[in-house]
Amino acid sequence: MVSIDLNSDLGESFGPWPMGDDVSMLGIVTSANIACGFHAGDPAGILAVLREAARRRVSVGAHIGYRDLVGFGRRNMDPSSAELIGDTIYQIGALQGLARAAGTTVSYVKPHGALYNTIASDALQAADVIAGIKALDPSLILMALAGAPVVEQARAAGLTVVCEAFADRAYNADGSLVSRRLPGAVIHDPAAIAERMLRMVEERRITAVDGTDIAIEADSICIHGDTPAAVAIARTVRDRLLAGGVELKSFSETIRGAGDA
Amino acid sequence: MVSIDLNSDLGESFGPWPMGDDVSMLGIVTSANIACGFHAGDPAGILAVLREAARRRVSVGAHIGYRDLVGFGRRNMDPSSAELIGDTIYQIGALQGLARAAGTTVSYVKPHGALYNTIASDALQAADVIAGIKALDPSLILMALAGAPVVEQARAAGLTVVCEAFADRAYNADGSLVSRRLPGAVIHDPAAIAERMLRMVEERRITAVDGTDIAIEADSICIHGDTPAAVAIARTVRDRLLAGGVELKSFSETIRGAGDA
Amino acid sequence: MVSIDLNSDLGESFGPWPMGDDVSMLGIVTSANIACGFHAGDPAGILAVLREAARRRVSVGAHIGYRDLVGFGRRNMDPSSAELIGDTIYQIGALQGLARAAGTTVSYVKPHGALYNTIASDALQAADVIAGIKALDPSLILMALAGAPVVEQARAAGLTVVCEAFADRAYNADGSLVSRRLPGAVIHDPAAIAERMLRMVEERRITAVDGTDIAIEADSICIHGDTPAAVAIARTVRDRLLAGGVELKSFSETIRGAGDA
Amino acid sequence: MVSIDLNSDLGESFGPWPMGDDVSMLGIVTSANIACGFHAGDPAGILAVLREAARRRVSVGAHIGYRDLVGFGRRNMDPSSAELIGDTIYQIGALQGLARAAGTTVSYVKPHGALYNTIASDALQAADVIAGIKALDPSLILMALAGAPVVEQARAAGLTVVCEAFADRAYNADGSLVSRRLPGAVIHDPAAIAERMLRMVEERRITAVDGTDIAIEADSICIHGDTPAAVAIARTVRDRLLAGGVELKSFSETIRGAGDA
Repeated sequence: MVSIDLNSDLGESFGPWPMGDDVSMLGIVTSANIACGFHAGDPAGILAVLREAARRRVSVGAHIGYRDLVGFGRRNMDPSSAELIGDTIYQIGALQGLARAAGTTVSYVKPHGALYNTIASDALQAADVIAGIKALDPSLILMALAGAPVVEQARAAGLTVVCEAFADRAYNADGSLVSRRLPGAVIHDPAAIAERMLRMVEERRITAVDGTDIAIEADSICIHGDTPAAVAIARTVRDRLLAGGVELKSFSETIRGAGDA
Repeated sequence: MVSIDLNSDLGESFGPWPMGDDVSMLGIVTSANIACGFHAGDPAGILAVLREAARRRVSVGAHIGYRDLVGFGRRNMDPSSAELIGDTIYQIGALQGLARAAGTTVSYVKPHGALYNTIASDALQAADVIAGIKALDPSLILMALAGAPVVEQARAAGLTVVCEAFADRAYNADGSLVSRRLPGAVIHDPAAIAERMLRMVEERRITAVDGTDIAIEADSICIHGDTPAAVAIARTVRDRLLAGGVELKSFSETIRGAGDA
Repeated sequence: MVSIDLNSDLGESFGPWPMGDDVSMLGIVTSANIACGFHAGDPAGILAVLREAARRRVSVGAHIGYRDLVGFGRRNMDPSSAELIGDTIYQIGALQGLARAAGTTVSYVKPHGALYNTIASDALQAADVIAGIKALDPSLILMALAGAPVVEQARAAGLTVVCEAFADRAYNADGSLVSRRLPGAVIHDPAAIAERMLRMVEERRITAVDGTDIAIEADSICIHGDTPAAVAIARTVRDRLLAGGVELKSFSETIRGAGDA
Repeated sequence: MVSIDLNSDLGESFGPWPMGDDVSMLGIVTSANIACGFHAGDPAGILAVLREAARRRVSVGAHIGYRDLVGFGRRNMDPSSAELIGDTIYQIGALQGLARAAGTTVSYVKPHGALYNTIASDALQAADVIAGIKALDPSLILMALAGAPVVEQARAAGLTVVCEAFADRAYNADGSLVSRRLPGAVIHDPAAIAERMLRMVEERRITAVDGTDIAIEADSICIHGDTPAAVAIARTVRDRLLAGGVELKSFSETIRGAGDA
């Protein structure tokens, strides 16, 4: 039986400002990328989300970002190596502490926003994030963009890496994401998204924006959950995959299972 | 042989702004209260201090504070219970992560500034800090003001508590500290401070500001290290205690030793 | 013809996090209390709100708060006198700059949240806010809780003060607000709120929570706008006042008009 | 009589962390670039520096930066146009408010750190800073690197621009600064720096790092003041210029004087 992981960004409320419908999404996804306080998330809110993730046995990842709250971690920055290593460890450690208090553990790390995009191909910043993870706990899994250079870089450094595809994003023929600045970058039709993801899971192929058919190897599907429409899309993807006979299972469970065998 | 712990607040630099002479102090103290980023400390700087503490085998504590950088955690605040519990866990967890990366561990928790003073007698905020520590790791030791109500409250809640005296502060006859707003609150003469601490360790007594002789039970002595004068005082205290036959030993080592016996 | 001002808290979005329906509210109120970045509001968002306020000729006030973003300025703090004076001037100055760029001006100052409540009766913090306003521009009007000690204190210091009533809050017989912790503190029925406010404007009286009839002198009515329900209430109040023959007019216009006469 | 302006970065303390010897520097320079709270500076500290600047009749500029306290505004960032315009106005407005309270005014704007370097040649971010200044007050002078593209861009947009040279920095033959990563980038000998600056003022020429003699048109000399050595260098430069018959005079005074004539 084919299995796949569904992941979503959660815990991104801050103080008085809510973001997303975390409780609904925790009923849909198998892995929760939880903000660590630098781009979003405050400790009390993160703790509440972690408790709900623990209760629902959803796998937890540290969604680390640049220290840029007002910019939501979406602005490029060039921290020094010492800063980025320190920021990586600090955020994961804080989430590990909150996770322990909530009765769960952090299984993986997924950089957020501009940090995610930058380390996909910037080997220097990628090396800092990898070094931070390894210094803290080399058994933490790194979640990265399928096909990006960071995947091999992190594996060469000894980390386990899982690759993800984006449910509602169009792909170029070279496997990269179509820039959000271009028309057609985001797919809005829930049914189309769901069919696309089912095919990706079953055939490991996806249709690029220019109509060509490309290979994609993803262990996880990223689905957004910050709007009511997004929750509906997430439900549609989940239901279609289940109806198609796909098992929904967190990759960390799959990897641990393989390790135990 | 009588032993005592010497502790100091370290890791309080922030970004481009240095504070204190951490390297010198790590050659003097046996326990380092290390800032966790809320009142002071940035991840890269904290990590550097932790590495030096690890190298010198100085015991490490989480110096948690209110989320108030510009006020250095010295301003009273009334966070909600959920906020204070979350902030407590977040800060300790972040320091635990950095400590792990530096090859050491966090042995204890010492609240800082206004949080330290508030929980000394405010049972509600004290309960939140205690709850946060227990939710994260009940084996963490709480460092508190000798004689303060929080000592019994935390012990009743199941935490191990160590009490500290302040090397350069005058005491009232009831064992409380003389307010910094009053004359004579701070003692400046290094030799006088050193003698005073030697007597406190040997006889468990100290002379109050009104001349009466009071009992004080402290497992640790807090010495400041943020000025050149402070480092000199710290050295004088250390040398006098050693010359007086007192062993300098971190309380966490003492407690672990007792547990092993 | 009787006139009254309607005010609401706006500009409280922050970075990626929206709050309230500022555009709708700017079609209803005559005065906009605009966040200045310490408890909420980022420069780009504040500037956008100010432009809309300028376009609609809504009067603008500086909604200053404690420097506590995660706590939304709702947590008590005890800044030093120098800090509170500096923070007051900084926030108003920043808003004045943005207002100038938007083609409008700051007419008044309304402290927010915990600062609002604290200075209502804490003469020390009130003195700092008053000193800050006077040092910057003594012609700025202070908006304060009708009946609170700060009203007389600020007038004695030479400031013009306008008093406000809260549309959806219950009052005690002594004119103070019923604590939000008590049942009945907040009135939810739009029609009841609207009638209550019409009577307050016409008769300068309001029914307290214990049924007694009390006098209240308010130049402005504060209405919330951060939920769809709140916008509906605001519209109901506005419509009822207009239908009752009340003129809606910003107090700053009224005061300037009186000054011109 | 030839005149020149001396400028220095001041007001860069933050909360408990001091930086530089502002009082000494205010006795040396004719223009003070004062931090506005985004890369450094807190309102109470900024206000104190402004009062001293007012007392000594030193001209005041807004030293605006990226919103990056821990990185001291030295890290590159890519804010959106709306963000950078808003941040520019907010910071200048806040400083204008504090300046008014201190009895002085803001005459000019000097971007700091990474923002300074970026807008020197990045026309997009430069356009945002220029737009922010113009929206707030088109009479504000922009201080920029002599010879940089932003000088002409800002003049074309209608701003008055003054150019500055760096006292202790080596220049390339094309007039750009030698990168701090290269040896010889910073000149340390006070006497050499002073002679170099005297020649620059008198002959409008400077010797580049490769020995060639280059033209440089600067209305102001930037001298650092954040270390005891820096203060000594600043005094040496000042004394040498005065001994050489150069008048020290803020450029804003010179420009205003020319405008009056």
